[in-house]
Amino acid sequence: MIESLAGDAAVRALLEEVRPPGDVEDALARVSWSVLAEPGDGVAGTLIEQLGPSDALRFALGRENAATSEIGGRALVDGRARWTIRAERRSVVDALRGGRDVGARLLLPGDTLWPSSLDDLGVHAPTLLWVRGDPMLLSAAPRVAIVGARASSGYGEMLAGDFAGELAAEGAVVVSGGAYGIDGAAHRAALGVGGRTVAFLAGGVDRAYPMGHQQLLRRIVETGAVASEVPCGTAPTKWRFLSRNRLIAAVSDATVVVEAGWRSGSLNTAGHAAALGRPLGAVPGPVTSASSAGCHRLLREYDARCVTTTAEIRELWAGGRPETSPGRGTDPDQSRVLDAMSTRAARAVLEVSRRSGLAPERVSALLGLLELDGAVQRADGGWQRTQNGERRG
Amino acid sequence: MIESLAGDAAVRALLEEVRPPGDVEDALARVSWSVLAEPGDGVAGTLIEQLGPSDALRFALGRENAATSEIGGRALVDGRARWTIRAERRSVVDALRGGRDVGARLLLPGDTLWPSSLDDLGVHAPTLLWVRGDPMLLSAAPRVAIVGARASSGYGEMLAGDFAGELAAEGAVVVSGGAYGIDGAAHRAALGVGGRTVAFLAGGVDRAYPMGHQQLLRRIVETGAVASEVPCGTAPTKWRFLSRNRLIAAVSDATVVVEAGWRSGSLNTAGHAAALGRPLGAVPGPVTSASSAGCHRLLREYDARCVTTTAEIRELWAGGRPETSPGRGTDPDQSRVLDAMSTRAARAVLEVSRRSGLAPERVSALLGLLELDGAVQRADGGWQRTQNGERRG
Repeated sequence: MIESLAGDAAVRALLEEVRPPGDVEDALARVSWSVLAEPGDGVAGTLIEQLGPSDALRFALGRENAATSEIGGRALVDGRARWTIRAERRSVVDALRGGRDVGARLLLPGDTLWPSSLDDLGVHAPTLLWVRGDPMLLSAAPRVAIVGARASSGYGEMLAGDFAGELAAEGAVVVSGGAYGIDGAAHRAALGVGGRTVAFLAGGVDRAYPMGHQQLLRRIVETGAVASEVPCGTAPTKWRFLSRNRLIAAVSDATVVVEAGWRSGSLNTAGHAAALGRPLGAVPGPVTSASSAGCHRLLREYDARCVTTTAEIRELWAGGRPETSPGRGTDPDQSRVLDAMSTRAARAVLEVSRRSGLAPERVSALLGLLELDGAVQRADGGWQRTQNGERRG
Repeated sequence: MIESLAGDAAVRALLEEVRPPGDVEDALARVSWSVLAEPGDGVAGTLIEQLGPSDALRFALGRENAATSEIGGRALVDGRARWTIRAERRSVVDALRGGRDVGARLLLPGDTLWPSSLDDLGVHAPTLLWVRGDPMLLSAAPRVAIVGARASSGYGEMLAGDFAGELAAEGAVVVSGGAYGIDGAAHRAALGVGGRTVAFLAGGVDRAYPMGHQQLLRRIVETGAVASEVPCGTAPTKWRFLSRNRLIAAVSDATVVVEAGWRSGSLNTAGHAAALGRPLGAVPGPVTSASSAGCHRLLREYDARCVTTTAEIRELWAGGRPETSPGRGTDPDQSRVLDAMSTRAARAVLEVSRRSGLAPERVSALLGLLELDGAVQRADGGWQRTQNGERRG
């Protein structure tokens, strides 16, 4: 019975290998939950929130006492079958052993190293995280998600690399999903500048997915971190990819989608970021490129910010939209005076007045200011524009 | 004295050649104002609004009666010099003669053909319009401004041509500024599909500006319209370009900037559109292209809509932002069931339940729905995914 694993010495010994001493019963209940429930299971999350992991587990497995059974409605009771069918001691042991074997650390909510940003997910927060590498990076600030399509173009990969490299060089933690395309370009660029990067995986942290990123993920473990909420041995599935995306969005101070097709999974990450109120940026591209269609959709439908430079990405978490500046530029009357002048011929104030449609007194005043700027100069019989004034006009 | 031109038979005769019979005194006062004041002169506009064009003219030239002199403050009186210096009968005659010589029509506010959209400019509305070609196009709906940089790229010109051609083919009037680059591409594409296009010029309608567009502007006059608020003979200046932009923005139901540099004049047109509450679209492009930097700035700073297709441009004036649709797509539980199935091997309901983390009853129900969709089929000992189900997953 997996509710009573705390009394199992072998299991306790395994637990001690993956995390510092603490509340053994709660920790094992959470590991059990990670085996029973799929990522983001809101009913499981609600139970854990209300009862704590251990009592929630007893309830889930139908061995609750009278007091706790009253909190669950009919739907909860009916839904339990999805958990009981997976309730095996062996699965919990395998999860612990798998984590230990790859040197992963088990993080639980409430731990000093637990990234509190994930708590914003409420009942959809993960029950735990397995982390290979440096778990402090999940809380180091600033963290920026650079994500995008697997089917990326050279344009997108170049930009993902430029942005991730520059941000990582400045000390930001680059968060992504370890996939081919944009994700890979972002991770690689961060590593390339000796920066810090975190990959959230949809499967267990013992599995290199995709296989072609085996070496990349190994390098990330060495100086960054690879994290997952599912037990070692778990295969990534479409559902787990979608669930994983919420962790990328929640753990990051801002999310930037560099390239995405019309139905790219990155739009799902972006949707999570928007739902969480996290700043969301999208990089535009040629409208003729299918790999940018999703980014343009984010600009149109999700109110994402258009970002084109590293500085603009930094503004996302530095907060605040830049000022609108329609009136920026030269004083319009100065512009009119310069329009009315010539670089070749001197013109009298009255002539400039007639040509510009400004009163002679106003023209005189403006000419004085423009002279200070070096834009005009006195000449025979009047004023003329300098080369400097020519460039301004 | 230009306040009393209504008594001048030669001038009256000229006026009759450029517009149908009407209030001669007011018409001549407006033509005089177009000679005295630069485009968008708000003080002149205020005077005309309060006194009517004829009395405003008498006031402006310092020959007002006691009653009207009281409405102007000190600033107004001081400002009059900018008008009086240009007050010559000859200039008014030249304006009328210039218009007549090129077959232009003089439109005044209140005329049946006057585009009422311009009234939204308030005291900055033009005092008149000179129109060569079909003046009805200024009021024909829908009118869409397609504008952009003179220093355009092949990418921008192609898109301007595609958008303008498709919109014009559907009956929209394509409004632009007659310049090289994006403007020219838009006008040409509209003409190319036998559509209607309007060019607003910064100088007089008798002047082909730029010279290289002499033939293009002639073609626009034949089937479209060329319009300006300044008298024939007036040269375009930087100030007049900026003022002209407000007419493009005001007359159009929506404005789309296809390409623009960081300081392009098109941003000024866009600023007018935004200030007038007209829908504003910007076409994104590669962030590596300087010709798209202004468009990205519009997306960032002016809250312009990102538009990438003709259909999205049409939405600008059709009104309403499209619905945000983060939840669009497959039912997540269906996705989880499909994830847990194979196209090669049949799996029992309990096995699918265990793999998907969904209760067996829920799995059964979902399998039934998926079977109706043709995504799964019954097979030896359970269920398997069809090729159709494979594509959906």
